[in-house]
Amino acid sequence: MNTLPPRAVVREVGLRDGLQSIATIVPTERKIEWIRAAHEAGQREIEVGSFVPARLLPQLADTAELLAFANTLPGLRASVLVPNLKGAERAIDGGAHLMILPLSASHAHSLANLRKTPDEVVAELSRIRAARDAAGSTTLIEGGVGTAFGCTLQGQVEQSEVLRLMQALLDAGADRVSLADTVGYADPRMVRELCEKAIAIAGDRFCCGHFHDTRGMALANVYAALESGVERFDASLAGIGGCPHAPGASGNAATEDLAYMLASMGVDTGIDLERLLALRGKVAGWLAGETLHGALHLAGVPKTFNTAAIA
Amino acid sequence: MNTLPPRAVVREVGLRDGLQSIATIVPTERKIEWIRAAHEAGQREIEVGSFVPARLLPQLADTAELLAFANTLPGLRASVLVPNLKGAERAIDGGAHLMILPLSASHAHSLANLRKTPDEVVAELSRIRAARDAAGSTTLIEGGVGTAFGCTLQGQVEQSEVLRLMQALLDAGADRVSLADTVGYADPRMVRELCEKAIAIAGDRFCCGHFHDTRGMALANVYAALESGVERFDASLAGIGGCPHAPGASGNAATEDLAYMLASMGVDTGIDLERLLALRGKVAGWLAGETLHGALHLAGVPKTFNTAAIA
Repeated sequence: MNTLPPRAVVREVGLRDGLQSIATIVPTERKIEWIRAAHEAGQREIEVGSFVPARLLPQLADTAELLAFANTLPGLRASVLVPNLKGAERAIDGGAHLMILPLSASHAHSLANLRKTPDEVVAELSRIRAARDAAGSTTLIEGGVGTAFGCTLQGQVEQSEVLRLMQALLDAGADRVSLADTVGYADPRMVRELCEKAIAIAGDRFCCGHFHDTRGMALANVYAALESGVERFDASLAGIGGCPHAPGASGNAATEDLAYMLASMGVDTGIDLERLLALRGKVAGWLAGETLHGALHLAGVPKTFNTAAIA
Repeated sequence: MNTLPPRAVVREVGLRDGLQSIATIVPTERKIEWIRAAHEAGQREIEVGSFVPARLLPQLADTAELLAFANTLPGLRASVLVPNLKGAERAIDGGAHLMILPLSASHAHSLANLRKTPDEVVAELSRIRAARDAAGSTTLIEGGVGTAFGCTLQGQVEQSEVLRLMQALLDAGADRVSLADTVGYADPRMVRELCEKAIAIAGDRFCCGHFHDTRGMALANVYAALESGVERFDASLAGIGGCPHAPGASGNAATEDLAYMLASMGVDTGIDLERLLALRGKVAGWLAGETLHGALHLAGVPKTFNTAAIA
């Protein structure tokens, strides 16, 4: 038997990765209700939005307001996605606990999606680090290496290139790095192998695995990552979000399914499953007409399952 | 890194576990088409039905005919479920490669579902073994221990009881034993632990893991079982089947998603994924109106994925 960690963090990304890819625009007051209820359910890390121009992602135009609200909740570590220095300056101004700069290890995906080469993103991270330090800010910087397991545009992505870019992000001043299966190409064997190599490079600065459920393997990939020593996972309530290149396919790992799997295995997440399911029901109502995912809300938490002991 | 086996068997149970739990009655000629196409896609183990009284499961009334057809296909090992000696006699007469006698480790579930205690099922297996040997038949006998990870009626099921019953089945003359998460209570940690203990008891007579996707963990559980040394898995095309105690919940592991995960990890199943997806589309058409599952049919096999090399 491998030993699993005694606890793990489920980082909610539904408000960013989820909402950015669906048509419904959720009003700010509802997003605030979501963040408040997630906090009440025990979630302590929430990515509240993205500092991209509002004309590109009108769904996320209220990120500054959500960040300000999230910072009023005790113990909540709010993060934001930042595409560049300009976004990072807003994250620093807003007092984010963490900002995440995405990098795509696939050159084709990087050019198509970020309009920069991966190495230009590394250079941007250097500038963000300099700006953060000059501002005397404590906002952490995470370099998130996406398309780390394959890419719809480019096909295979070499492990050596993923690891080179991860090292380059650390050298450029990232406090943390993470890996994302942006388009759902990962399998548990790949995850285990790459995460072990990533941890060998980054140690405890390797902070998170982000797995999409495009081909049904999100939870299997989380389990493989857990076995490798990863202790933080991105997930999205009702599995919203996903892969624009695979229409109809599932999105992120569903927060509620992931939280249940971890609790069932005795890995403490601090999450109250019944409260989380109640929130899922509320958000599902707001997103009526959108394709939602997840299984736990249908089957429920087994009656014999001791959620109180876990939460 | 754990080593994964070079190959594994995906045993199709959609025609039995799948069809028995949905309302649509699929005509015999379509089931024959399904078996033929599955064989053409490379599947070599198919559970074609169940020898239960037709009044109980009219969906499976044509099992003898399907078994006769399956036995005409080269290399196909057809299995049937048998609830008792009477069913076993029909499996022996029909020349099944394998008959599976289900036992429920949960006493409450066993009484409710099989109207026998688990030990009465063990005694029935003795009688089946005697009948098989008396007939000079080569039909293999598998004792399938269900509700092995928990039970909707009883709650927790003790590992020691699961393992005791597995040993009793072997002592009573089972050629093989298997474990089933009948109601979707298993998590990867439980699977790893119980499968390792089962293999310690039964060695290579421990033959199969049967995981339901009730709470989204079927593939994660398969991965955990693979790591434990299990090399055969039940699965159901489009994930049909399921758990009558969790309405709306997912059914079995979806054959196509499981076959893809294994192929992606380099575990050879002999299955041609594109042919399997074509069959899935056909069966989905026959089952219009039923709730189907799976992710691969939406996202597709990545263009860069070398299916030919795997199949």
